[in-house]
Amino acid sequence: MIRIAIDCMGGDAGLPVTVPAALDFLRRYPDVQVLLVGLSEPIGALVAADAAAPRDRIEIVHADEVVTMDDPVEVALRRKKNSSMRLAALAVKDGQADACISAGNTGAWMAVSRYVLKTLDGIDRPAIATALPNRKGGGTTVLDLGANVDCTPEHLLQFAVMGAALVQCQTSGQRPSVGLLNIGEEAIKGNEVVKDAAELLRASPLNFYGNVEGNDIFKGTVDVVVCDGFVGNVVLKSVEGLASMLSGIIREEFHRGLLSKLAGLLASPVLGRLRTRVDNRRYNGAALLGLRGVVIKSHGSADVYAYGCALERAREAVANGLLARTAQQVAEIRRSLDAAGVLPAADARHDANGAEGGAVA
Amino acid sequence: MIRIAIDCMGGDAGLPVTVPAALDFLRRYPDVQVLLVGLSEPIGALVAADAAAPRDRIEIVHADEVVTMDDPVEVALRRKKNSSMRLAALAVKDGQADACISAGNTGAWMAVSRYVLKTLDGIDRPAIATALPNRKGGGTTVLDLGANVDCTPEHLLQFAVMGAALVQCQTSGQRPSVGLLNIGEEAIKGNEVVKDAAELLRASPLNFYGNVEGNDIFKGTVDVVVCDGFVGNVVLKSVEGLASMLSGIIREEFHRGLLSKLAGLLASPVLGRLRTRVDNRRYNGAALLGLRGVVIKSHGSADVYAYGCALERAREAVANGLLARTAQQVAEIRRSLDAAGVLPAADARHDANGAEGGAVA
Repeated sequence: MIRIAIDCMGGDAGLPVTVPAALDFLRRYPDVQVLLVGLSEPIGALVAADAAAPRDRIEIVHADEVVTMDDPVEVALRRKKNSSMRLAALAVKDGQADACISAGNTGAWMAVSRYVLKTLDGIDRPAIATALPNRKGGGTTVLDLGANVDCTPEHLLQFAVMGAALVQCQTSGQRPSVGLLNIGEEAIKGNEVVKDAAELLRASPLNFYGNVEGNDIFKGTVDVVVCDGFVGNVVLKSVEGLASMLSGIIREEFHRGLLSKLAGLLASPVLGRLRTRVDNRRYNGAALLGLRGVVIKSHGSADVYAYGCALERAREAVANGLLARTAQQVAEIRRSLDAAGVLPAADARHDANGAEGGAVA
Repeated sequence: MIRIAIDCMGGDAGLPVTVPAALDFLRRYPDVQVLLVGLSEPIGALVAADAAAPRDRIEIVHADEVVTMDDPVEVALRRKKNSSMRLAALAVKDGQADACISAGNTGAWMAVSRYVLKTLDGIDRPAIATALPNRKGGGTTVLDLGANVDCTPEHLLQFAVMGAALVQCQTSGQRPSVGLLNIGEEAIKGNEVVKDAAELLRASPLNFYGNVEGNDIFKGTVDVVVCDGFVGNVVLKSVEGLASMLSGIIREEFHRGLLSKLAGLLASPVLGRLRTRVDNRRYNGAALLGLRGVVIKSHGSADVYAYGCALERAREAVANGLLARTAQQVAEIRRSLDAAGVLPAADARHDANGAEGGAVA
């Protein structure tokens, strides 16, 4: 059985999305149990209202506090110790669940899950990864998307390891290819951090493709694209902004006058297929990687369908042993880079990374 | 008269695009003269073949070397001293032209024009700026797009000054609003360079809006978005990649089977309007800002229409006094920040910036 702790209160909609999505998900996957974490009364009412809910695989965990979308990280961490978000992460820490998920505010979820679960051995900083649709019909996994704004070359190497392990879990592919996001394919380009990271990646046993550029994300040139969290976050929001502008323009043009509306009606099967192909709800469910537990972040505006997709991310990461894979690859890479003398000694590394941790977007 | 020196050899197509575009442009703007720089024989033949070419406003400048799209910067700078690219920049330096333009390789064009023309007083590093279409129907000017991968806060301030001056030339707007690209609107977010840049911008007389995120580029939240060249280049290529993927998908879906083709036919006026609205050829013509001369970079793959748009950028920058505006704003901002004690002394600044200059994408 795969046990998933769900922060039912998180997200723009909260309960009306998370609970129905969880119940649907249970019906689709008989190997899943859920812990529904949040205000137990309304959760119980929603479960009771669904006659076909598989009650034997549902446990309700009461939490009387809720981290709001606007709560600063400090409030989530220090004031709301009984929040649904925190209790969901605690369920993983205490071994009651294998994975936890929230659609709540990203910064708070990252901070709380990191505080509760801690990072894996050999990982200095967790990272946020998600897949963006590419031209090949698959997804390109990009990380970090905003957990770490200032990164060292070794952080980028760790992101590569974690991203490759995640893709292995999703595709059963043998050795996912990894690209380093840069401003040109030539090795001489880029800033110092990226150049040094490329050297580490080349010396590692990862399937390192080399530098890639922004458009390679959508070409599907590689399985995993690695960048620091500042760049990743800006790219993610930029492409979301462009996509939203374009879909707005398409809608407008097909509603401009009677003839256009008619054309839109006639073209509606085509437009429908288009919508399906570019539907980013399918890619909902970012992974917060590098923690001692599977932690998934759903988009705050997810609907029931999108939230279900994020739940699939959680299930497949557990089913395919994401944590063990990551830990094993981290150890393997450390051995090979240590043997090659490429990495600074562990102590020096720890000093360099400091204790402050990453800023969270 | 506005005199534009055109590197006729640059770009994927070269002469068959640049010369016809120049001739069309001359017909549209009677206040323009052009210097057609490149292999004089084929240029002369193309001009001769156009019976309506306004010959009195055309001068052909022979250059027997061509910087190719793959030439490294060093080759363009040190080996090909008689290239069309270099002679176009030299025409500006020697006062024979007010602006120069090339569709050749960006790195080479930046290096050559910078070497020949030098930077304006108070500008440490030139930057590349272009407009991206936004939801308001206008363009958001973004810089730097790849000239400088490692930037100091003061570089970002200088980019803001140059970008604001450029937008003023294009829109005659009084005080363009400037946003700083970041991963969150809150002032506490972002890396150290961006945080310090925000302080400088707030203390400056610029119309500083504050932090903006990637999606604000397409919302049109501000007139000018400032970022370092690494981030800007990655964003530009990412959105180009997404746009190209989406237009490929739209084409595919409207060609899938007879019914879809019919729907496409019926929807063709709508699709045509769509294409016009998102046609990025209109925005062709990036400005290499901060040099002692108006320098424009056309997309390498520009067609005649797109190249004509880039020529408009050159003309409007000259007509509206871009250089004088930039110089004046630089001086004004320097005075006000010096008075506020926000900037380090000029000497310290120069040490910090070093002599190596920016890496060029």
